[in-house]
Amino acid sequence: MNNIFGRNITLTLFGESHGPEIGCVVDGLRPGLPVDEGAIAHQLDLRRPRGNIATARVEPDPFRIVSGVRQGRTTGTPLCILIPNRDVKIEDYVNLSDTPRPSHADYTGWVKYRGCADLRGGGHFSGRLTAPLSAAGAIFLAALAERGIRVGTHMTRCAGIADRSFGDLTVDLAYLDNAAFPVLDAARGQAMQSAILQAAQAGDSVGGVLETVIIGLPAGLGDPWFDTVEGLLSHALFSIPAVKGVEFGDGFALAELRGSAANDPFRWQNGQVVTETNHNGGINGGITNGMPLILRTAIKPTASIALPQKTVNLAAGTDAEIRIAGRHDPCIVPRARAAQDALTAFVILDLLCNTI
Amino acid sequence: MNNIFGRNITLTLFGESHGPEIGCVVDGLRPGLPVDEGAIAHQLDLRRPRGNIATARVEPDPFRIVSGVRQGRTTGTPLCILIPNRDVKIEDYVNLSDTPRPSHADYTGWVKYRGCADLRGGGHFSGRLTAPLSAAGAIFLAALAERGIRVGTHMTRCAGIADRSFGDLTVDLAYLDNAAFPVLDAARGQAMQSAILQAAQAGDSVGGVLETVIIGLPAGLGDPWFDTVEGLLSHALFSIPAVKGVEFGDGFALAELRGSAANDPFRWQNGQVVTETNHNGGINGGITNGMPLILRTAIKPTASIALPQKTVNLAAGTDAEIRIAGRHDPCIVPRARAAQDALTAFVILDLLCNTI
Amino acid sequence: MNNIFGRNITLTLFGESHGPEIGCVVDGLRPGLPVDEGAIAHQLDLRRPRGNIATARVEPDPFRIVSGVRQGRTTGTPLCILIPNRDVKIEDYVNLSDTPRPSHADYTGWVKYRGCADLRGGGHFSGRLTAPLSAAGAIFLAALAERGIRVGTHMTRCAGIADRSFGDLTVDLAYLDNAAFPVLDAARGQAMQSAILQAAQAGDSVGGVLETVIIGLPAGLGDPWFDTVEGLLSHALFSIPAVKGVEFGDGFALAELRGSAANDPFRWQNGQVVTETNHNGGINGGITNGMPLILRTAIKPTASIALPQKTVNLAAGTDAEIRIAGRHDPCIVPRARAAQDALTAFVILDLLCNTI
Amino acid sequence: MNNIFGRNITLTLFGESHGPEIGCVVDGLRPGLPVDEGAIAHQLDLRRPRGNIATARVEPDPFRIVSGVRQGRTTGTPLCILIPNRDVKIEDYVNLSDTPRPSHADYTGWVKYRGCADLRGGGHFSGRLTAPLSAAGAIFLAALAERGIRVGTHMTRCAGIADRSFGDLTVDLAYLDNAAFPVLDAARGQAMQSAILQAAQAGDSVGGVLETVIIGLPAGLGDPWFDTVEGLLSHALFSIPAVKGVEFGDGFALAELRGSAANDPFRWQNGQVVTETNHNGGINGGITNGMPLILRTAIKPTASIALPQKTVNLAAGTDAEIRIAGRHDPCIVPRARAAQDALTAFVILDLLCNTI
Repeated sequence: MNNIFGRNITLTLFGESHGPEIGCVVDGLRPGLPVDEGAIAHQLDLRRPRGNIATARVEPDPFRIVSGVRQGRTTGTPLCILIPNRDVKIEDYVNLSDTPRPSHADYTGWVKYRGCADLRGGGHFSGRLTAPLSAAGAIFLAALAERGIRVGTHMTRCAGIADRSFGDLTVDLAYLDNAAFPVLDAARGQAMQSAILQAAQAGDSVGGVLETVIIGLPAGLGDPWFDTVEGLLSHALFSIPAVKGVEFGDGFALAELRGSAANDPFRWQNGQVVTETNHNGGINGGITNGMPLILRTAIKPTASIALPQKTVNLAAGTDAEIRIAGRHDPCIVPRARAAQDALTAFVILDLLCNTI
Repeated sequence: MNNIFGRNITLTLFGESHGPEIGCVVDGLRPGLPVDEGAIAHQLDLRRPRGNIATARVEPDPFRIVSGVRQGRTTGTPLCILIPNRDVKIEDYVNLSDTPRPSHADYTGWVKYRGCADLRGGGHFSGRLTAPLSAAGAIFLAALAERGIRVGTHMTRCAGIADRSFGDLTVDLAYLDNAAFPVLDAARGQAMQSAILQAAQAGDSVGGVLETVIIGLPAGLGDPWFDTVEGLLSHALFSIPAVKGVEFGDGFALAELRGSAANDPFRWQNGQVVTETNHNGGINGGITNGMPLILRTAIKPTASIALPQKTVNLAAGTDAEIRIAGRHDPCIVPRARAAQDALTAFVILDLLCNTI
Repeated sequence: MNNIFGRNITLTLFGESHGPEIGCVVDGLRPGLPVDEGAIAHQLDLRRPRGNIATARVEPDPFRIVSGVRQGRTTGTPLCILIPNRDVKIEDYVNLSDTPRPSHADYTGWVKYRGCADLRGGGHFSGRLTAPLSAAGAIFLAALAERGIRVGTHMTRCAGIADRSFGDLTVDLAYLDNAAFPVLDAARGQAMQSAILQAAQAGDSVGGVLETVIIGLPAGLGDPWFDTVEGLLSHALFSIPAVKGVEFGDGFALAELRGSAANDPFRWQNGQVVTETNHNGGINGGITNGMPLILRTAIKPTASIALPQKTVNLAAGTDAEIRIAGRHDPCIVPRARAAQDALTAFVILDLLCNTI
Repeated sequence: MNNIFGRNITLTLFGESHGPEIGCVVDGLRPGLPVDEGAIAHQLDLRRPRGNIATARVEPDPFRIVSGVRQGRTTGTPLCILIPNRDVKIEDYVNLSDTPRPSHADYTGWVKYRGCADLRGGGHFSGRLTAPLSAAGAIFLAALAERGIRVGTHMTRCAGIADRSFGDLTVDLAYLDNAAFPVLDAARGQAMQSAILQAAQAGDSVGGVLETVIIGLPAGLGDPWFDTVEGLLSHALFSIPAVKGVEFGDGFALAELRGSAANDPFRWQNGQVVTETNHNGGINGGITNGMPLILRTAIKPTASIALPQKTVNLAAGTDAEIRIAGRHDPCIVPRARAAQDALTAFVILDLLCNTI
């Protein structure tokens, strides 16, 4: 069990929130894939906190490609991206070491790493690690785009407010590529932002649901046991801090239907087998059927809140109260999108290696 | 990507629904684990279809341990279990080969395996494969029990009807060990069975939600990237045919809460750190925190229904209608429990190998 | 660490020498590969002991394909082959359990498996396990042959006697396909057989060197770190019981040369880059260069000998003497060839999955 | 197939000879292992070219620990070490791109990476990559030393001259820890150095054999199929550029012996089972038996030589002659020792994770 994911392509994340640099290594990419530094910067930009709905910590995220790229193309050898950590106010977190923040990894990381890990600011568990992940995501997304496969994610729910459903997928996905606050309906986006601000002012935080769609997938990706497309994607997506559920197609709603309503009838369309409905989210028997792949992740509210909370003092062996000082993002849902797109693209790219 | 799962322990399933035998190989089990043939038969019994709420196909499931066991204990070398296929009415399925059953793997398996796979009765995708899985589950569950870890699953929802919530976990899990229809409230179980019968009489099927609880887990299992406990369990559980969603703790409901309501405060209890609530289902930062681990899977209604359905004829290139003759289980939720327990126990056992 | 090998294709061996059956599972084979039961029987025949130069134990090796094959072709799902154990004289080995045979796995297996393993007749370590391996080898070899790749092995040394070197590779490899005693020069083969008989009559055993050549390989297979072609092949080949060394091209002899003599100059030939010499055995920088791949394994003399040997009594804690009764092969070199061809073909097939 | 090795612990190398930095990521190390920067510098020093027997390129190898270490101890999260490339004379190699150096990876890398890789100076194939490997080796060796396990390597042969055999292993291994030119007999070391100089003056190069011994190993490490200790070690060791053979114990010499001479009799010694001889190099049936583990690697002469050589022009499609200008090490055997110790220690450490 470790910090490496993937079979044909592998992704390794390293670094800690308060270390000098964080980074990733991607191995197994085929030589000749386009690597556009502008696209990498764009993905980093999409995950960057913005204005008053996100932490005030400035994260310009300059990055450095250390290996694996030459003249704008992958070389086929391991690709390493490094991102320096900056503007870290170490003192904010120092007093947390003995008093684990509720629903953070402070306590479990302390147990697992036997007190040796550098857990300041979340350490290796920190959401900061999604920066190199998002950077690499730009390369994965470009590799899929070359094959006509598009990935996009919107906040289908946030702070209890629903976005509109996907309509014309090609149009909607193109729109999301550049949407800093990834909703399809601007008015509902405004309502979400107001609700996030309200929670922040109350010293609290909110969560939401991210919905991802992939179009252009060939049928036949995935395996029945145990590398189902659902299994591989969920394995990856649960790494995004705060994800507590993953569902495909109609997901949990399917459990309430009868078979006659849940099944997706086949028919021919332009020489292709398609389904009339897509309750199964483009996957049958763990394998893609060529229809749009649809998934949703449940993102719990940010665990770091300004309100006082009950915790324990691990050193003293006493109960304690904690007030988390630093700067905290009252809603990480919009920013988590870049990580979700990156991991989704990674898994699909890895699956495609098996089919060529 | 393949039919092998696990890192320290590995599980391989092989066989097809209409082949001579199906089986599994488990490698990496430590020598000396108890192997009780009665316990294996019991797990096979729990997954067996019963009476009128399940397919009429008789599955007594005699099994044969081919290797890896001596004098009732694992040897430490690969353990192979074989189960013969019997009572197969081949003709029932033969006419399906050109007309894929909607929301089954017939079409995707045909694409993936380029027409070479033996997909009669679902072939390697068949729910039959959960028989050797459930058999192996008996060994996994016993290995956990030796360490004081208990796993149990009930139908928290079925056909739109809810079971009661877990109460005293020790009592409830002991009860479920022998409950052929795994519900905690007998009256609601009766209501579910009536609803299943009703659907069956209408030529239709129903789904549900299976909730699993694990108690006795140590804190510190799992990794932040990418082998989170949630990621590993979901990877495994999506292999169970019909699972379309997996959530932990309050899961998707967490997305609707504020942080102050979702966080689980820590406190000391009898020299142990515990949480006052368990919205996070015993997992923080992808790592167990020592509280009961709680997960739920969404099981879609059985795809095989008696009602006529629209499909395509792959050979003729025309649209078609299909009526699935054979014997079909209008609700696989109660039987899927044995597979869910087996996979859950497998993942936990695999994680424990890392901690000793 | 476990009993599974391979990345794109995986091979699992299971079973014990004195269990009911032994077998293998091969996962990841592409659908549609030819599976010829005659070819499987032929490979099993090549590994069968013959006449007085091998153990008198009769091994007709009937095999059974349990899954993964339909109408003479792979289905793409896991392929399981079972071989029953027969004609086992259990009593021969029973007295060995406390007195480990020198240079066998009796002692190390006893330590590793904490006394739980069934080590009668070698248990899971037994050369018997090369039977399902050789059976699967027939499928690997046929898959390579479809792509114009041929593999063959001869006894380049045995009992201190050298076979002639390879000449016309196409002719020599075709000859070896059907050579029960795999030498290129019949007279030297006779001398080897005499030497083997002599050793047997002295209650002793002999070893040798197996040389394998692969022709028709494309350039570009393998990776620099760490999946070099040499590394992957040696990883597999050291599993053959008694292999204690693996070398490529001129191997250890290269260590004695100067660079000017060891380097293989390039030149163009019929539009292809070739090398004038092949001291490097078709591999540069861990990657195939398109020339014939050449490797040799050192096979130590059979550890089971009739002469009395010093050992310990593990139960009594005393030194002891052992006389190994049963039937033993005074030279396993000719029979090991089928396993060497199988593993070599497996590794190449696995590597080819990465290139298409 | 990729650039990651290991199962419980994993090692990833990244970077190219002419890129800004090269590095490694080690994942899975347990928290709390000692990390001594002085020990890392020492291992880098041992692999550094020296005086006139090595390339004149200066490699002071400053390194930077980016993650995974806190206060001189591993944290348990991924450990990344970076080493900047300096003093690179790019022009030396530029003209090689179309004319591959014989017996280098220039041609095979060009085929494999389809012309996209940066192969200047060997690129990702370069011996430079053994610098981060050797740096990490310091950590692996320290982790083994904590458990009483010692690893050491000497040049048992070089330029046709033999070193003396190992005597008192504890003394000899301690001596080798600080021997810049790793031979046990100083006079023979002088003779080797003279022979290396002679070859260099002739524009040529020499090879040799590195012998590694490990003491303090517990019995019971390794698996029969396919993760034998021999298989795992050889898999790793063939990554060292120029290794063309690996043997254990008496290796290829065993193939010439009779069983009665090759077998290692057991006896009790101070309550432990030992063997009277160690022809099998501490491994029986792929598993350690507690005796010193002995292995040897065949290192071919450096492929880069000053003498003119025949090659091809890949762009022009013509035969060509090449004179390799730059600075080249006429014998990499002494320097390869640091990489051999690092990889050996890594494999043993990985195996030990399975036993605790």
